[in-house]
Amino acid sequence: MTTDRLLTPLAAALPASVPFVGPETLERVRGAPFTARLGANESVFGPSPAAVDAMRAAAAEAWKYGDSTSHELRTDLAAHHGVTPEHIVVGEGIDGLLGTLVRLTVAEGTPVVTSAGAYPTFNYHVTGFGGALHTVPYTADHEDPERLVAKAREVGARLVYISNPDNPMGSWHGPATLARMIDALPADALLVLDEAYADFLPEADRLPERADDPRVIRMRTFSKAHGLAGARIGYALGAPGLIAAFERVRNHFGVTRMSQAGARAALADADWLAGVVARVAAARARLAEIAAAEGLTALPSATNFVAIDCGGDGALARRVLEELAARGVFVRMPGVAPLDRCIRVGCGTDADLDAVAAALGPALAAARSA
Amino acid sequence: MTTDRLLTPLAAALPASVPFVGPETLERVRGAPFTARLGANESVFGPSPAAVDAMRAAAAEAWKYGDSTSHELRTDLAAHHGVTPEHIVVGEGIDGLLGTLVRLTVAEGTPVVTSAGAYPTFNYHVTGFGGALHTVPYTADHEDPERLVAKAREVGARLVYISNPDNPMGSWHGPATLARMIDALPADALLVLDEAYADFLPEADRLPERADDPRVIRMRTFSKAHGLAGARIGYALGAPGLIAAFERVRNHFGVTRMSQAGARAALADADWLAGVVARVAAARARLAEIAAAEGLTALPSATNFVAIDCGGDGALARRVLEELAARGVFVRMPGVAPLDRCIRVGCGTDADLDAVAAALGPALAAARSA
Repeated sequence: MTTDRLLTPLAAALPASVPFVGPETLERVRGAPFTARLGANESVFGPSPAAVDAMRAAAAEAWKYGDSTSHELRTDLAAHHGVTPEHIVVGEGIDGLLGTLVRLTVAEGTPVVTSAGAYPTFNYHVTGFGGALHTVPYTADHEDPERLVAKAREVGARLVYISNPDNPMGSWHGPATLARMIDALPADALLVLDEAYADFLPEADRLPERADDPRVIRMRTFSKAHGLAGARIGYALGAPGLIAAFERVRNHFGVTRMSQAGARAALADADWLAGVVARVAAARARLAEIAAAEGLTALPSATNFVAIDCGGDGALARRVLEELAARGVFVRMPGVAPLDRCIRVGCGTDADLDAVAAALGPALAAARSA
Repeated sequence: MTTDRLLTPLAAALPASVPFVGPETLERVRGAPFTARLGANESVFGPSPAAVDAMRAAAAEAWKYGDSTSHELRTDLAAHHGVTPEHIVVGEGIDGLLGTLVRLTVAEGTPVVTSAGAYPTFNYHVTGFGGALHTVPYTADHEDPERLVAKAREVGARLVYISNPDNPMGSWHGPATLARMIDALPADALLVLDEAYADFLPEADRLPERADDPRVIRMRTFSKAHGLAGARIGYALGAPGLIAAFERVRNHFGVTRMSQAGARAALADADWLAGVVARVAAARARLAEIAAAEGLTALPSATNFVAIDCGGDGALARRVLEELAARGVFVRMPGVAPLDRCIRVGCGTDADLDAVAAALGPALAAARSA
């Protein structure tokens, strides 16, 4: 019996490639740790000390399964967002929640629309459940709501994905644009609004809650501004009927006790969050200066990373990325032209950014001479 | 647009019921915490202090995603089991790994065989992916390898599930029986050997590693003897071709940084594990005495729980369970006759077992008089 004989036809046909190779794996391949870990859009400023304390306290209780309903966290989140706990499902990060959502809504051949170069893990899930992925280009480094909606109408999409602010470009749309997009969706389509970076949006650019709107599901995470990527916890906000459907298939005891405790404490520490957002804004400004000093352009960003246009094609940017890695600076880059003229650099500590400042010039020179 | 219109036909047809209601939910319903939390087969003796320390240390690094390959833990596990890291995939507990395995192997209508009354979460995943679940009865409170294999041949099963030791009855089979079962499997079937409780098996009753045997995948967890249920981390041991297939669909960054660190430390602390196993054995003996004092029979168990035959039908055992809960003692029970003549009581601390001893007589009396 070969493995492929054991697999479903769908599983047998799936590629073995993974959406992201982790930094630890890259470090093992290069044989040394990175000096600056700026490629995974993590928050180098860390979680709230209160969140660390809460996780440490919960560690002693680790023999108990985490609450399968994340009741206390959902109650806190409901108060925070002005909705009810029935509008919220907690899961193993947005990645896990996207997988569950796709499983619920996408069968083999179901049309799904996203932007070419947008979040690869969403595509991984759609492909993994046999969906038919349709893409539209970015427009001026922004995901394009009009193109997305037009494609959704054309192919009869069940899901339409957009991230706001966008990963990997850092660009964003204001609430009026998103509201128009929701209103323009075909009747059978659901907007998957990935708001992993929403905590970094200027207040005026935030889309108000749409608690009972069945046309949109919003994905949030503690992995970015809250600095809890390693705790793997996120949540989806949506109409109760859709949220309830997650109960039919999700891994009910999949979120750890420590993560639930850490997330509650992080949510309660608004001052820490504000401090992180301010430090991220300062780091973005410095990254723009570092880029400018080398004659490069940093794109505007409402996230904790900055896309820096390397001024050439994807091959040049790839070489810059590799030369930065060789100098101990881990960054990533978009996978699709013309976005891939850029590298994507995380908002680091001062020491991280010093490392970027020192490495970028030599990396550029080496990349250009290759 | 209704939610059901958004769902796949399979998802729309799934029941909203969940395999297990968590103890926190039950406590909220009853309005008070349980005195003795003995229903979820958790390890009240807790994790190794070294594991708690490791998780606490990792909490400060929670801003970093956990290693998506769990490389260090897989390396440790490979050494522990005498296999290679390519024989191992780490996931969000056995529940998560079972879900991924079923997704890889079960399409709509795929036949799957298990025992009536065996692990509900396995059934949940099979149903969730549209598989056709076929069951055979237990024989004398043991899952019955011959019946399972015969049914697998009859229906052309892709997966055959058995837990050893068994949950919920605590019974077990020796290695010769399991080896015969594997040899008797139909050519296209995979044995899903759930070994969540294997750490409690007498040494002589353990099935040796079958590292490259493509006919069996073994599921292990840190949730039971290692006392890390709240960290949600387990692993599957299998032939590398099958293990590699998990990469095609799993949530790559789904296991937390703290959990990986805690699991490594727990695995290294063999003394703690031996101490837990000894305390569990003592608790099983005391539970048998407590049952006998009320004229009831405790079934033999190689797990951290004991099935106690309440001497009547499922309705009587259900009333005993409810009367115990009313007295602050949380236990569970099998869901299918004739297994459901029993309640399933976890191996508690001395204080937990004192609570059981105090509550069982009155609970029985109340149940019998209802």
